[in-house]
Amino acid sequence: MSLSFNIHYQSPTSRARLGTLTTPHGVVETPAFIFCATKAAIKGASAQQMRDAGTQIILSNTYHLMLQPGSETVARLGGLQKMTGWKGPMFTDSGGFQIFSLGHGGVAQEIKGKGQAHRPKTMLKITEEGARFKSYLDGSLHMLTPEKSIQVQRDLGADLIVVLDECTPFHVDKDYTERSMNLSQRWALRSLAEFQAHDNGTQALYGISQGGVYPDLRRDMADFLNNQPFFAHAVGGSLGASKDQMYDVVAMSMEYLCQDRPVHLLGIGGIADIFAGVVHGIDTFDCVHPTRLARHGGALIQPHTWEELQEDPKGREHMNLKASRFRDDPEPIDAKCPCETCQTMSRGYIHHLIKAKELLAITALTIHNVSFMNRLLTAVRNAIKSESLASEKSNWITK
Amino acid sequence: MSLSFNIHYQSPTSRARLGTLTTPHGVVETPAFIFCATKAAIKGASAQQMRDAGTQIILSNTYHLMLQPGSETVARLGGLQKMTGWKGPMFTDSGGFQIFSLGHGGVAQEIKGKGQAHRPKTMLKITEEGARFKSYLDGSLHMLTPEKSIQVQRDLGADLIVVLDECTPFHVDKDYTERSMNLSQRWALRSLAEFQAHDNGTQALYGISQGGVYPDLRRDMADFLNNQPFFAHAVGGSLGASKDQMYDVVAMSMEYLCQDRPVHLLGIGGIADIFAGVVHGIDTFDCVHPTRLARHGGALIQPHTWEELQEDPKGREHMNLKASRFRDDPEPIDAKCPCETCQTMSRGYIHHLIKAKELLAITALTIHNVSFMNRLLTAVRNAIKSESLASEKSNWITK
Repeated sequence: MSLSFNIHYQSPTSRARLGTLTTPHGVVETPAFIFCATKAAIKGASAQQMRDAGTQIILSNTYHLMLQPGSETVARLGGLQKMTGWKGPMFTDSGGFQIFSLGHGGVAQEIKGKGQAHRPKTMLKITEEGARFKSYLDGSLHMLTPEKSIQVQRDLGADLIVVLDECTPFHVDKDYTERSMNLSQRWALRSLAEFQAHDNGTQALYGISQGGVYPDLRRDMADFLNNQPFFAHAVGGSLGASKDQMYDVVAMSMEYLCQDRPVHLLGIGGIADIFAGVVHGIDTFDCVHPTRLARHGGALIQPHTWEELQEDPKGREHMNLKASRFRDDPEPIDAKCPCETCQTMSRGYIHHLIKAKELLAITALTIHNVSFMNRLLTAVRNAIKSESLASEKSNWITK
Repeated sequence: MSLSFNIHYQSPTSRARLGTLTTPHGVVETPAFIFCATKAAIKGASAQQMRDAGTQIILSNTYHLMLQPGSETVARLGGLQKMTGWKGPMFTDSGGFQIFSLGHGGVAQEIKGKGQAHRPKTMLKITEEGARFKSYLDGSLHMLTPEKSIQVQRDLGADLIVVLDECTPFHVDKDYTERSMNLSQRWALRSLAEFQAHDNGTQALYGISQGGVYPDLRRDMADFLNNQPFFAHAVGGSLGASKDQMYDVVAMSMEYLCQDRPVHLLGIGGIADIFAGVVHGIDTFDCVHPTRLARHGGALIQPHTWEELQEDPKGREHMNLKASRFRDDPEPIDAKCPCETCQTMSRGYIHHLIKAKELLAITALTIHNVSFMNRLLTAVRNAIKSESLASEKSNWITK
């Protein structure tokens, strides 16, 4: 299989569409959610458990893997898909996000209005050449250039790879944002050149939209991307300081990007975000939330479960299974959920596993949350087809 | 299904036999290995992964579960088999072993010649009534009597349960051992009475052989057990201060026990121990070693893998995947092993998972070690049938 993207349904009322992203490791029906296997492993779930939970595609982080075990080792072990035993479609980022977010504070911090006061500063300097940084593992010095990022991602061997860009902090002014965007454009061209020099048809390259919260910059960036032979685009950079502003920035970014290429929304994947994103034509999402939440005892649930619990979700999307109220509860998280966890375990048992610090608690909740997200995206795809996104949303989120 | 034990092959040259242990939750082909799900969960593997690795039966520890989440909670959640989703045959111990081993030092410490200098003393007093102890969780005071142990095990709901006995320390003299054995006999009768008062055919009771390293006491204990209506026997108590002495104590214990009941060897299950035990008629073994070893980066391997590695095992039975020599190794732990780990993961990937502190490292090694033990016991059963135990042993252990 080679790499291609086919849109087989385009909504007449919005930019929402259904697509098929074909990769050498299999097919992804879009819109799709991409789960984070940061260090080449989903925390708490095996590749088989991910497949059983309906997963189509996972991503790994170039930053972490270039430092440990090193991209050459991944290549010697056959590349990410063979090494992990996942074997299905995979995505890698450029490595830049972690470097810059450890320097600036990441997108999630921005949207939550948090600073990065307590983060150690590991990004040392951005120059025309690239970004110099210290390893989070041992403090060793490294340089990530656009060429190096592509070389590392070639070793890692994911199907979908991205250009190196500068992730601008959200508190910078328009001048900084524009200069940064221009740098990201030059880096994108260098990434593309490095990619094309070794392109053998097994990987596809994403260009990244920058330009912060400024419509004219996002338009300028879109013009640049549309005119280069990228396989796909990603919406990145500063998405604003609130959820509402993020949706505005996504909307303005998508307005200018050509619509025949797949579009990924970097690092965003809350339930509301997905319903908002697909309307603007976003095809894939990624977010650590479902798997991170599992490690903290949280199970994603739908409004019908809040009703069963006779509880007001107050804007929350998950059940906290650490709570002692679940100690003797013989019901599954959601009796309607087909996942292995809901088919075999009660809330009371999962509560016990959490209290007893058993690893199985993480596995059980990870399987449920992954299954939940995959069911959500299936429902979203069905709702796009039947033009019922608004009513479908009420099955997944209260408010 | 009710509870029964059928011997369908008896070796003419030793006490080794093949049996079928039938329980309300399924059948166990013996000799079999019982894996430890101490707190009602195998550390690092799901019930489905245990089944996929060929597991027949698991055990949970009454001591841990009576303290957390409490046996009433387990009962409300449907009993161990339903609560855990394992659904197959299960065994529980009496709770005594942990109380006494935290007071005296356990069997493994004895055999390794280790003391218990650094253990906090949580056993407070043994009286005719039972054992008073402090919870390892919160220091709260508890009393375990023979009746209470059976009541708790009834709530837990395992198929195979055991009487409360005193686990004598190994450094005591014959007088102490005899007095302790007599106490264990009185406790066994009280356990049996409590069991019979509520017996509904869903659980079966094991009596435990005591008597330390003294042949006449082991004989006295066997006479006692043989004359009581226990479903099965377990060999417990002090098994001596070395592996060789343990094999002698097992041999002398088995010589006197009636041969129509299944016999479990408590807390013992090394590869050599299994080959030694089955010759004396042991039907089931349990040991935390395979799963604990997995949590420390160790994979059980056979002599053919040592040969492939061109390495002298020097008495070791496992490969340490933390070792940097495995960093770029694309081979599975054992190419001949059919487990999910060996079919999908390289040594290099598992090494990376350990170094990156990924939970999947524990899961991968647990699946392999569980599969290894189940394959070992299958090979042992085949070798009993074909009278080839001695030659089969050389396929599993060097030395």
